[in-house]
Amino acid sequence: MPTLMPTPIRFYFDFISPYAYLAWHRIHAIAEAHGRTVEPVPILFAALLNHWGHKGPAEIPPKRMYVLKDTLRTAHTFGLRLEPPPTHPFNPLLGLRIASLDVDASTRRAVIDALFAATWGGGDGITDAASVARIAATAGIDDAIARAAEPAAKARVRAATDAALAAGVFGVPTMVCDDELFWGVDSLHHLERFLRGEMQTPGDAEILARWGSLKASATR
Amino acid sequence: MPTLMPTPIRFYFDFISPYAYLAWHRIHAIAEAHGRTVEPVPILFAALLNHWGHKGPAEIPPKRMYVLKDTLRTAHTFGLRLEPPPTHPFNPLLGLRIASLDVDASTRRAVIDALFAATWGGGDGITDAASVARIAATAGIDDAIARAAEPAAKARVRAATDAALAAGVFGVPTMVCDDELFWGVDSLHHLERFLRGEMQTPGDAEILARWGSLKASATR
Repeated sequence: MPTLMPTPIRFYFDFISPYAYLAWHRIHAIAEAHGRTVEPVPILFAALLNHWGHKGPAEIPPKRMYVLKDTLRTAHTFGLRLEPPPTHPFNPLLGLRIASLDVDASTRRAVIDALFAATWGGGDGITDAASVARIAATAGIDDAIARAAEPAAKARVRAATDAALAAGVFGVPTMVCDDELFWGVDSLHHLERFLRGEMQTPGDAEILARWGSLKASATR
Repeated sequence: MPTLMPTPIRFYFDFISPYAYLAWHRIHAIAEAHGRTVEPVPILFAALLNHWGHKGPAEIPPKRMYVLKDTLRTAHTFGLRLEPPPTHPFNPLLGLRIASLDVDASTRRAVIDALFAATWGGGDGITDAASVARIAATAGIDDAIARAAEPAAKARVRAATDAALAAGVFGVPTMVCDDELFWGVDSLHHLERFLRGEMQTPGDAEILARWGSLKASATR
């Protein structure tokens, strides 16, 4: 009989998000503890906002300040260094395209580690091509800038973003495990309960169905 | 020498939010464990969204479904019943105005308990005046509908919402403790660390100042 391999945990992210940085730091240990692998899916957060007509946290002044406080608080509990990049918002596409290149899993993890560290770990950011080329080379990817400029590399990020939208992803980081969606670093404890099989929730299907067809009695 | 009373924890909320329902269920025990009181501040969430040009979670279809799943997951860990009200979104102003009436602290807490239970605890909602009048009377407030219709009651919710905006509140629930802001039920563990005096974060002031004056190198 064939052995059923557990499906990987898909990790949708954009380097623009400090919450994605925090969750990336934890997701591998969580996955490994339950015999799962992590499938990183680089997507463009700005495209999610454009699609849903939404604002990012950094686009609302007090929320922008709060987000850095909140992520610093969580980084301290993780024992993780967190510092803002040289500019923010920045254009993350070069980093996303490099993170999407057709490389083996350990190289992909290494380059994402390094690009996140350059962004939120006190590095020089990921917008300067020469600096990004060095980061990618250290992680084992040569010619990263040229390869990221190929139409196939650009198409890969676009297709992943479209697929994320189709899967109901509205923010980053989003973890999808066995078709269950977990949004944000604060949902990791729910993901862990799910992986431990502790998310027995009788009655919820009926409640969710009711919610799905609920009428509004007021709108803004 | 006068004894310095610890300041209360301000709890900004709107009945529209299931996250506010979850946080309300926990905030009193957290406050009491640290010799604090809770000062409930009913505000109109829709006015925050209008002010910041933002969308509420229920206004983005996949986020709307996710939010109920996420709040059900948390409600299960709290051992708390959570069910959607008869309609959603609904107009919460009657409930907010009653929660703002000039009554003593224990009556205010009782009526907010009862209005939250009617909204998210399997009750009949808080939009029907006759039903809301019964809820308020049970909590010890007579003539609640008439009192909530007075200009002073309307002005109180409006003023509290304006003050919340001025204090940098962008969502509900928001807890403010000694001028530190904690947003969302997921931030309660940070609030607890803060109350325990465990939030020593050397270097953060410098990082936050840098973040506050950081330049953007791209916008959407």
